[in-house]
Amino acid sequence: MESWPPGGSGPAEAGPRLRGLRGADLAASASLLSGAGAGAEAGCSAPAVAAVLPAGGSGERMGVPTPKQFCPILERPLISYTLQALERVSWIKDIVVAVTGENMEAMKCIIQRYQHKGISLVESGVTRHRSIFNGLKALAEDQPNCRLSKPEVVIIHDAVRPFVEEDVLLKVVTAAKEHGAAGAIRPLVSTVISPSVDGCLDHSLERARHRASEMPQAFLFDVIYEAYQQCSDYDLEFGTECLHLALKYCHIKAKLIEGSPDLWKVTYKRDLYAAESIIKERISQQICVVMDAKEDEEHVGHRLEEMLKNELNHVKVTSGRDLQQIILEQCYNFVCVNVMTSDFEETQKLLNMLEESNLSILYPVVVISVQFLDYESVPFGQKMENLMQIREFAKEVKKTNILLYGLLVYYPQERITLTITKPEQRQELKRRKKLSAY
Amino acid sequence: MESWPPGGSGPAEAGPRLRGLRGADLAASASLLSGAGAGAEAGCSAPAVAAVLPAGGSGERMGVPTPKQFCPILERPLISYTLQALERVSWIKDIVVAVTGENMEAMKCIIQRYQHKGISLVESGVTRHRSIFNGLKALAEDQPNCRLSKPEVVIIHDAVRPFVEEDVLLKVVTAAKEHGAAGAIRPLVSTVISPSVDGCLDHSLERARHRASEMPQAFLFDVIYEAYQQCSDYDLEFGTECLHLALKYCHIKAKLIEGSPDLWKVTYKRDLYAAESIIKERISQQICVVMDAKEDEEHVGHRLEEMLKNELNHVKVTSGRDLQQIILEQCYNFVCVNVMTSDFEETQKLLNMLEESNLSILYPVVVISVQFLDYESVPFGQKMENLMQIREFAKEVKKTNILLYGLLVYYPQERITLTITKPEQRQELKRRKKLSAY
Repeated sequence: MESWPPGGSGPAEAGPRLRGLRGADLAASASLLSGAGAGAEAGCSAPAVAAVLPAGGSGERMGVPTPKQFCPILERPLISYTLQALERVSWIKDIVVAVTGENMEAMKCIIQRYQHKGISLVESGVTRHRSIFNGLKALAEDQPNCRLSKPEVVIIHDAVRPFVEEDVLLKVVTAAKEHGAAGAIRPLVSTVISPSVDGCLDHSLERARHRASEMPQAFLFDVIYEAYQQCSDYDLEFGTECLHLALKYCHIKAKLIEGSPDLWKVTYKRDLYAAESIIKERISQQICVVMDAKEDEEHVGHRLEEMLKNELNHVKVTSGRDLQQIILEQCYNFVCVNVMTSDFEETQKLLNMLEESNLSILYPVVVISVQFLDYESVPFGQKMENLMQIREFAKEVKKTNILLYGLLVYYPQERITLTITKPEQRQELKRRKKLSAY
Repeated sequence: MESWPPGGSGPAEAGPRLRGLRGADLAASASLLSGAGAGAEAGCSAPAVAAVLPAGGSGERMGVPTPKQFCPILERPLISYTLQALERVSWIKDIVVAVTGENMEAMKCIIQRYQHKGISLVESGVTRHRSIFNGLKALAEDQPNCRLSKPEVVIIHDAVRPFVEEDVLLKVVTAAKEHGAAGAIRPLVSTVISPSVDGCLDHSLERARHRASEMPQAFLFDVIYEAYQQCSDYDLEFGTECLHLALKYCHIKAKLIEGSPDLWKVTYKRDLYAAESIIKERISQQICVVMDAKEDEEHVGHRLEEMLKNELNHVKVTSGRDLQQIILEQCYNFVCVNVMTSDFEETQKLLNMLEESNLSILYPVVVISVQFLDYESVPFGQKMENLMQIREFAKEVKKTNILLYGLLVYYPQERITLTITKPEQRQELKRRKKLSAY
C-alpha cells in the first residue's frame, strides 16, 4: 500500500510542505510522487488520498439503453478507462465506486477482466449526491467490517470522465489540503440564460463572469463528510454540486482550478464517438523503445527518444526490466533495438511477453524490430537469413494480432549514427500510425 | 426564388396563421413547406426569411491552426455541411456568410466546389457581434449595389453547428414572427458557478433554473437590426448573446425553444471527431430505393420502404425522375429495383448518373441492384448470364469508388412477395453498413 504524499515519514502536517508548489513545480512533483511510495510506506503517517466515483446513473441523455459508464469504447467499458486513469496515480490509495445493485455483478466482472486494483464497491443511491454520500460513508472510520480507512483528502470524480490526468488531480488535492475544498472549472461554451415561467428569456448571464464546474473535485474528508451529514433531503434529491454543499454547510469557499478541455463529461452519444477517437489517438501516440543493453541506451536509445518525441506524445525508453508494467499500462507500439545480438533476442522476449499478456485481443500491437549489424563483419548470407527470420516471426505473430516489422541497419562499426535510421524509422512509424488508426 | 411561408399570396400578416402550429403540426408543416415554393412565387408578398452565419472565428479553442469552420470532415470543410443543412430548407431565401478578408477566397472556392446556392459573402468584424452586424447590414435595404432584399425574419446560426434540422429552424422562425425574437436552448451539462476575484467559489447556480443558449436564433429583421444599430461598442466587443441585445435595446423577450442534442457547437478537437462519426452514421442511415416503373412502387417499393424504415433513418422511394436532386443531396446508398426489364436498365441509368456526379470521389457509393425474374419463364442460361453481367458491372464501377452488389430474385409470377427478399436484403444492407463505416 502506498501513501500520499511520499517521503512523509514524520508526523508533520503535509499542508505547508505542499503549499508552495505551483505550475512547473507541480508537474515535477507529480512525476516524483508516483515513484516514491516505498519511503512513505515505512512511516505511514503521511496523509492519505482516496477517490469516490458515483456510477449509478442511468445515462438517459445518451439515448441508449446501457448506462453511459458501461458503454463500450473499443470493446472496453468507459468506466474501466476512468479507473485506469485513477489507478495510474500511485498516491491514490483507495477508489470507491458506487453502482446500482443491478449493475454490481457487471462491475465486479469489469474489475476482474481488466485487473483493476484497490477498488471497493458500494451500492449507489437514487441521486448523484446520495451515491457520493454512500461512498463517503464507506470511507468513514465508523463503518464496521470495512477494510478501508478514512483518508485525509477525498477526490470526487465522475465515472464518465475518462481523460483525467495526474496533474489536475494533484492540483485539486493540493488546493483542497490548503482550502478545505477545490474543484476543476472550465470556460463556458454557451451563454447561460435564465428563462421566465412562460418560457421566455428573463435575463442572460455574462459569459466571462461564470464558469462550468467540472470534475475532479477534492475535499478534506472531514469537511465534505460533515457537509453531507448535515445537508437536507432536498439537497440530496435535487442538488448537483458538492462544492455548494461544502460552502453551505461548512462555510468553505472552494479553490477553483482551471482544467484542460480533456475533463469533459461523456454525456451524449456524440461524446462516445469523441472518446473513441481520442483513445485511438492516444494509443497511436504512445511508444516504448526497448534496448538490449544499458550502454546502448546512451548510444542509440536517447537519440531515438529525442527524435520520436517530436512526433509522438508519450515516448518511453527501457532496457526491458519494466516491460511487464508497460504492457499492463496498455502501450500498443514498440520499437525493439537489437545492437549486441544478431538473433533478435530482445524482440523474441518482447513478443513472448506480448503474447502472454493478451494485450492484442482488443487492438493490434505493433512492434518494429531494429537490428544493427556491422557491414564489414557480417556476410551476405547472414543478411538474407536475418531477413527471412523476421518474416517468419511476422507471419507467426500476426495470428495473435501482433504486427511485426523488421528494420535491418548495416553499418561500418566506426560510423554508426542515427541519421542512417531516421528516414526509414519515420516511414515505419507513419505506417504504424496509419495501421493503428484502422 | 422561393418565399416563406408558401402559399401566402395575400397581403395578410402571416403571424396569426402560424400561431396555432405546435408539435406534430409543425413537423408536418415543415415537410409541406419544402415542396410548395411555386405557389408562393406567384404572389411573392409572403414574408421572406434569410440567414446570417458569422464565420470569422479563429478557432483558438480547437488547438489547431485552421479555423474550426474550415476544418475538414471527411475531406469537406465543416462550414459546407452547415450551408448544406440551411440550403435544404426551401423557404430560406438568402444566406449571408461573414468571413475574414483572409479567408474570402477560400470560402469562394468552397461555395464553388460544393455547388452551394444563394450564398452572399460579407467581410467579418473582429468580434462575433460585429460579424453578425455586417451580415445584417448586407440584408438591410439601404445598402447600394446589393442583390439581397430585406427579409421579414432573419435566422442567426453558427457556421460550426452543422446538424441543424428544418424542424427547429421552423420553430424559431415561427416563434420569432410571434414574439419578435426566439432562440434554441438546451439543458446545462455542468453546474455553472460564479468565481470570486481570488479564484474561489462565490456561489453556484441552480442547474435546473438555467439553460444553455444555443443556435439557431431568429428575429424579426427590424428588431435585431434596430438593436445592433443602437448597441454600444462595449456590447459589440464583449457581448456574446443576440437575444440579450433584443431584450436590452428593443425590450423584446425572446421565446425559448427546447432544441435537440444535435444543436451542439463544434468547439474543441473532440467535437471534430464526434462530427465525423455522426456524418458517417448519417450517410449510412440514408438510402434511396429506385423503381423502374410507377406501378411497381405500389407492389414492391412501398413495402420495401416500410421494411427499411425500421432499420434506417432516411428512406426515399423514387421512380427515378428526381434522382439528380437526390444525388446532389449526397445520398450514398441505393437499392435499384428492376422488375420490368431483365437488362438492369434502371441500374445502368443510376450508375451513369453517379459516375457523372463525382459523388464517389469523397466517399464510396453503394448500389444494390435487385432484379426480379419469373422463375418459370426465364431459362437457366439467362440466369447465369445475369449473374455474369452484374459482376462485370461491379468490376467496372469499382474503379470509380462505386460498390455494386447484385441480388437476383427468381419467382413464379403469381407468388411475388417481399418476404422472399427480406432476409437477403437485410444481409446486404448490413454488409453495406459495415462497408460504409470504413
